[in-house]
Amino acid sequence: MQNVTYYQSIFNNFLSNYQLDEEPQTLYQPIQYILSLGGKRLRPTLTLMTAEMFGAKAENALNAALCVEVFHNFSLIHDDIMDDAPLRRGKPTVHEKWNLNTGILSGDAMLILSYQLLEYYNGTTFKELNSLFTKTALEVCEGQQYDIDFETRNDVIIDEYIRMITYKTSVLVAAAMKMGAIIAQASSQDQHLIYEFGKNLGIAFQIQDDYLDAFGDPETFGKQVGGDIIENKKTYLYLKTIEHGSQQVKDELFQLFNGSEIDLQEKVERVKQLFETSGAVKETKTAISNYTAKAFEYLEDLSLDDVYKFALKQFGEQLMQRKV
Amino acid sequence: MQNVTYYQSIFNNFLSNYQLDEEPQTLYQPIQYILSLGGKRLRPTLTLMTAEMFGAKAENALNAALCVEVFHNFSLIHDDIMDDAPLRRGKPTVHEKWNLNTGILSGDAMLILSYQLLEYYNGTTFKELNSLFTKTALEVCEGQQYDIDFETRNDVIIDEYIRMITYKTSVLVAAAMKMGAIIAQASSQDQHLIYEFGKNLGIAFQIQDDYLDAFGDPETFGKQVGGDIIENKKTYLYLKTIEHGSQQVKDELFQLFNGSEIDLQEKVERVKQLFETSGAVKETKTAISNYTAKAFEYLEDLSLDDVYKFALKQFGEQLMQRKV
Repeated sequence: MQNVTYYQSIFNNFLSNYQLDEEPQTLYQPIQYILSLGGKRLRPTLTLMTAEMFGAKAENALNAALCVEVFHNFSLIHDDIMDDAPLRRGKPTVHEKWNLNTGILSGDAMLILSYQLLEYYNGTTFKELNSLFTKTALEVCEGQQYDIDFETRNDVIIDEYIRMITYKTSVLVAAAMKMGAIIAQASSQDQHLIYEFGKNLGIAFQIQDDYLDAFGDPETFGKQVGGDIIENKKTYLYLKTIEHGSQQVKDELFQLFNGSEIDLQEKVERVKQLFETSGAVKETKTAISNYTAKAFEYLEDLSLDDVYKFALKQFGEQLMQRKV
Repeated sequence: MQNVTYYQSIFNNFLSNYQLDEEPQTLYQPIQYILSLGGKRLRPTLTLMTAEMFGAKAENALNAALCVEVFHNFSLIHDDIMDDAPLRRGKPTVHEKWNLNTGILSGDAMLILSYQLLEYYNGTTFKELNSLFTKTALEVCEGQQYDIDFETRNDVIIDEYIRMITYKTSVLVAAAMKMGAIIAQASSQDQHLIYEFGKNLGIAFQIQDDYLDAFGDPETFGKQVGGDIIENKKTYLYLKTIEHGSQQVKDELFQLFNGSEIDLQEKVERVKQLFETSGAVKETKTAISNYTAKAFEYLEDLSLDDVYKFALKQFGEQLMQRKV
């Protein structure tokens, strides 16, 4: 097994040689564009790493890795339309640079292209990859729908929130890893364990994202700190405050999130205080630790050499320290 | 082999037992809605009919038939957004009844569900169905993109138009039939012939649609006669007039299609005269005959009993007479 940079580099090389049809250009140029915007290529890297860990050649996992990345970028194009987002990785989103119809249709084509990439495989490997991919893709749609539904609901509970982030983001990380294991023909027990590792790590990462959005270092977090509070997002911190805060705290938070005319900077500060004093910050930190620990527990029973388990744990720790 | 009504009926029965996830309702209700709007179920009927003709049981082809129908309805939802269409089969379109985001996301989920329906099959059948479906789905996207591109182009030629309608509508009819042949494990020669039969019949049908839109009987055509002319659509009739008309005819047609302030009824009448006098009507009729004849030629080499070839030809004739 090599280090993360190595897998990123062979993936990026494979991606740069990926040939799309040329015509109609109006369909394929936006696809080239979104795929060229970069990113850490986290999911495809995980597919390659997992495949090698279980004894396959990374080269044999490149098509599955690209399938996952193309699907991820399809979901970004359509999500950006739904969120009316002007920018993606500092560049105009597809529907902004072109138009709504281009965003819809190029996204559709990418979803189909991600299936096409799996045609590289045969027999039961093809069937297993396909079924896992379909199940995952459908869950991602469901997660996106729950996220939209939550915007207009005031009775969302923590369990629903965990399901939403699991479907919207974690299952694709989990599936990316399981696809590597399928290609390497790992046992179904190992496939299950690596999937649960990825899923729980993904959940921990997402809750940490909520935490950092409010309490992260503006220098290193990369996004505007307090952005979720300004947009009245029902994050883990918010839901825990509603769950455990006194009636007074709940009332104040509800008011701050529903049409209060307070100055935004003041609002962010006051909401953060409520998150702290209600105990929600402490509970959020506990949840991050618990999901991370749960992810690592799944590693124990893997029928892999300890050196690989150690590498996976190290990868998980670096991810949670936002170093990969 | 049974008659068309029989296949429509077992398909509708299968569709009515099709179980979708219940949650989130906001994702799955629009899918139930569009699938319940009815229609002739032409494509799935063809899959069932073809499967039985080549020796499989229709029951074994129901999943593939539903895959094609779910995909077709996915494309209707997204096309209706792109065309800003308020109605579909006399009922509000999904994005009108709900909203844009629901239209996008429910459509995405349907595209994934159509792949899921193919999981009923195994081995090479699964792989072959999947690959054919992916190729077809991508062509449908390309066809839709060409159609959009043509709206703002004034130099579209007949060959490009034929490619557009082939991709946008005919390949799905062709693939619906070939899927039946794949399930019945027909020879690759027979698979090819039935595909070409469906494709050419689909092209003939689509050109006839252009003709009937201008010259059909308002009582029986079902759509507003002259609608394409009012919407300045570059149909087969239009393109043939541009191709063969005198400079004077071209100039007048171009003017009528680009911001003329003439009364709409007068415009329809004058454009129809130009279609007639330029010889475009005659050429359009010839093209319909030629594509129909070409479709029937492909039947000749099929390794099927004459009774089936006769049934397919009869089906083609009824379709062209708009009786099925």
